[in-house]
Amino acid sequence: MEYYSGKINQLIEELAHLPGIGAKSAQRLAFYLLNQPEENVKRLADVIVDAREHIRYCRECYTLTDREVCPICSNENRDHRTIMVVENTRDLAAYEKTGKYEGVYHVLHGAISPMLGIGPGDIRLKELMTRLQQDVGEVIIATNSSLEGETTAMYISKLIKPTGIKVSRIASGVPVGGDLECIDEVTLLRALEGRVEL
Amino acid sequence: MEYYSGKINQLIEELAHLPGIGAKSAQRLAFYLLNQPEENVKRLADVIVDAREHIRYCRECYTLTDREVCPICSNENRDHRTIMVVENTRDLAAYEKTGKYEGVYHVLHGAISPMLGIGPGDIRLKELMTRLQQDVGEVIIATNSSLEGETTAMYISKLIKPTGIKVSRIASGVPVGGDLECIDEVTLLRALEGRVEL
Repeated sequence: MEYYSGKINQLIEELAHLPGIGAKSAQRLAFYLLNQPEENVKRLADVIVDAREHIRYCRECYTLTDREVCPICSNENRDHRTIMVVENTRDLAAYEKTGKYEGVYHVLHGAISPMLGIGPGDIRLKELMTRLQQDVGEVIIATNSSLEGETTAMYISKLIKPTGIKVSRIASGVPVGGDLECIDEVTLLRALEGRVEL
Repeated sequence: MEYYSGKINQLIEELAHLPGIGAKSAQRLAFYLLNQPEENVKRLADVIVDAREHIRYCRECYTLTDREVCPICSNENRDHRTIMVVENTRDLAAYEKTGKYEGVYHVLHGAISPMLGIGPGDIRLKELMTRLQQDVGEVIIATNSSLEGETTAMYISKLIKPTGIKVSRIASGVPVGGDLECIDEVTLLRALEGRVEL
């Protein structure tokens, strides 16, 4: 790329490493940044480095946070006897946005995937089992509705059942507002199996 | 966003300011960065700040570069009597990628747009006219084929005509490999008007 000079090429290459950023987007981002006031660009760089430096896992639920115990786990108004198991911090955020869930979470940071060689030891399962030695009433498994998510859910439920703690799985079915026509067959069958009496 | 903690929220907000990065992508990018080794994240931040700090306009053609004179303008094998006028550095790069253009460029950094209040004084037009006092054989106007690009092309050609220097405009028409069915009417008419004898 002789048409851009050294530092611009370097910037484009670095940006193109980011997920979901192709060669074109990297160029657009690069020139956007080069046209910004220097202090804005410095602030962005500082925020990136600062967040990365201070990031850690919550001691309780293993979500990514900048504190020893995350805001949810340190909130005494939450129901600490109900633990929702999610694959990652973004899934946690998705449930938090509903504003209706009052329990706490456990973030696995992944799902079991024999295909990718990710076993039970590679996600935060041991940590979950340790938490269950405290007073827990219910574990709600909210891993994704994918092959990996389902495998993980089954694995966890088998692990927990012997402890006598209640284990549940979030329902799968037709999304609210979803047009039946546009929904895949597996989901349609799931929705049928999971039908509830009115 | 109480579900993420301070520094994560800050990072997501900063990333969401970038063009083409919505709330969801900003979250995905943020967690990608938080999961990267610290040195990679620092390198990205350094490259961003470094590129922004060293960026300047080429003294000749006003493209963005990190040198006083860009690699193209300082290349003696290029034809310095032919100047292609483009709207921005990415458009320059697009023509450079063809590998066939041997002249030099002039980067306007914008296009005349009465709608956005961008007049001839807001783009690098004066600088182009100054360059034309040197020995120039042809000015090829390669502004975009948009309303603003066409307005700018017309304006520049009127400005240059009196100097006696040859002015040309890149052809507009059906893109190579383009399926006529999928091409808008304006382009089809342009292609018809611009037909060449075989």
